[in-house]
Amino acid sequence: MSDNSRNQKIIDLLNRRQTNMTVFMDEVHKPHNLAAIVRTCDAVGIGEVHAVYPEGMISSCGHTASGSNRWVETHTHNSLDEGIIPLKEQGMQVLAAHFSDRAVDFRAIDYTKPTVVLVGSELYGVTERAAEVADEHVLIPMLGMVQSLNVSVATAIILYEMQRQRETAGMYDSRQIDEQTFNRLRFEWLHP
Amino acid sequence: MSDNSRNQKIIDLLNRRQTNMTVFMDEVHKPHNLAAIVRTCDAVGIGEVHAVYPEGMISSCGHTASGSNRWVETHTHNSLDEGIIPLKEQGMQVLAAHFSDRAVDFRAIDYTKPTVVLVGSELYGVTERAAEVADEHVLIPMLGMVQSLNVSVATAIILYEMQRQRETAGMYDSRQIDEQTFNRLRFEWLHP
Ligand SMILES: C[S@@+](CC[C@H](N)C(=O)[O-])C[C@H]1O[C@@H](n2cnc3c(N)ncnc32)[C@H](O)[C@@H]1O
Ligand SMILES: C[S@@+](CC[C@H](N)C(=O)[O-])C[C@H]1O[C@@H](n2cnc3c(N)ncnc32)[C@H](O)[C@@H]1O
Repeated sequence: MSDNSRNQKIIDLLNRRQTNMTVFMDEVHKPHNLAAIVRTCDAVGIGEVHAVYPEGMISSCGHTASGSNRWVETHTHNSLDEGIIPLKEQGMQVLAAHFSDRAVDFRAIDYTKPTVVLVGSELYGVTERAAEVADEHVLIPMLGMVQSLNVSVATAIILYEMQRQRETAGMYDSRQIDEQTFNRLRFEWLHP
Repeated sequence: MSDNSRNQKIIDLLNRRQTNMTVFMDEVHKPHNLAAIVRTCDAVGIGEVHAVYPEGMISSCGHTASGSNRWVETHTHNSLDEGIIPLKEQGMQVLAAHFSDRAVDFRAIDYTKPTVVLVGSELYGVTERAAEVADEHVLIPMLGMVQSLNVSVATAIILYEMQRQRETAGMYDSRQIDEQTFNRLRFEWLHP
């Protein structure tokens, strides 16, 4: 890519970035899942994600398998509460992707609202505390024998429903990030 | 699960199975991707998938990481043509998930038609031959810096659009598989 077209690509991307949409990875631990989730976030215009890593996991783990970490910032937290409470206090709706009695179909949700999509670990799913903190539980229909989808697959299905709704609502058409972030990221990405 | 509720679950699942919808994995080679794709297929009611494995790869590879292989049958082929031509001859539309000049948005497709979704390898994508054989190229919008999604993620996003359309069209409401297959699978799954 020429410098010029790269510059234009970066500007276009930053103009589409959704500042009030994020993913919270609650003890997801497989590097290929973390990488696939971050990659999907970049693709739908999410610039910042949150993670709590399982105890003992080296937190750099998420940073091995994917170039997407250059474009998407991961905020790591020592606990769920440390990460999620501030997001709730900003007025974001927290949706736990979680099978429970109170779960609603993921397509019934309004994703144009400020939204956190919280996903759980490969083995144990969403923790009790996360389920409690969440405003809603959302569920992707499963019509087969297997009980759950791969976590990066489930995240992506929800994020592309968000992308569809926000596209329809025109939310990708005007810049959301502030001037300062725009200029900083543009500079950093243009001059690696 | 009790034998009775397992029996009912199996009957319900078989009644929802989509016989004229399949996925073709063209040289996808990472076991976790193959496993995630098969798992998603089970979840949307696809009972048979097709694969060509890259040369040298032990074809049992796809069978390690996932229990879904019990519920979804993988037909392996020695070449793309060997696998895809018979499907085309049955009148199925072949959609290659592929970035090209002739690619259309994946949501613009009618998935209620008999459909093969063909996906390409992690590194090289869809081959020239596969792109040529395909009736359409479909593409999931990418709004970020990264060029492509993880292959199991891309497959799942397309399959859940299919699920949405077929649900709306009532295609999960009446049995598609023949009596013989129904009885065989029911027997096999109930008596492991
Ligand atoms: C492999 S699943 C965890 C399965 C775990 N055994 C359980 O019972 O929750 C990992 C995560 O993916 C997400 N997930 C998987 N399938 C989902 C579905 N059909 N609907 C919503 N979320 C799903 C959830 O966030 C879940 O915590
Ligand atoms: C990781 S991608 C291959 C990338 C490869 N470098 C290329 O240029 O094609 C693996 C496969 O996932 C599917 N895929 C990934 N992102 C996609 C998207 N945005 N739209 C459609 N298919 C996609 C395609 O089938 C692709 O062949």
